[in-house]
Amino acid sequence: MKARVYVSYKETVLDPQGKTVCSALQSLGYTDIVDVRQGKFFEITLKDGADPAGARKQIEEAAHEVLANPVIEEYRVEFLD
Amino acid sequence: MKARVYVSYKETVLDPQGKTVCSALQSLGYTDIVDVRQGKFFEITLKDGADPAGARKQIEEAAHEVLANPVIEEYRVEFLD
Repeated sequence: MKARVYVSYKETVLDPQGKTVCSALQSLGYTDIVDVRQGKFFEITLKDGADPAGARKQIEEAAHEVLANPVIEEYRVEFLD
Repeated sequence: MKARVYVSYKETVLDPQGKTVCSALQSLGYTDIVDVRQGKFFEITLKDGADPAGARKQIEEAAHEVLANPVIEEYRVEFLD
């Protein structure tokens, strides 16, 4: 079983890294691009035979407590197979 | 129209950042987790009224030429609405 946790800044938080990427792309001629926001993701492999409900709980908790900073970031969890 | 480009190391490339996150999570008691690999993503907003085919081509090209380093990274592009 695998899970992915996507972490990005909340809409209201400035993202200077994304802005820089956006300016760079525009100056390289990618003129259809008007905004870029950058985020990170974690692809997590879970133990074979782990209880699915327990594993989901661990991932949700890890995302909230460790991987994201809920003050300025939001996250989304996705479970595969 | 929006697009997301997900960039991560190829399977064969070591990911020390992911390994560190994995060890940290395990030591915090998230014992169902056996591996973590970290990646980044770009959420790209495209100009209203941009030609969809042209915009897709720009994103695919930007992903391959600028956002990812094809020598060590792989990427996946996702288009929304």
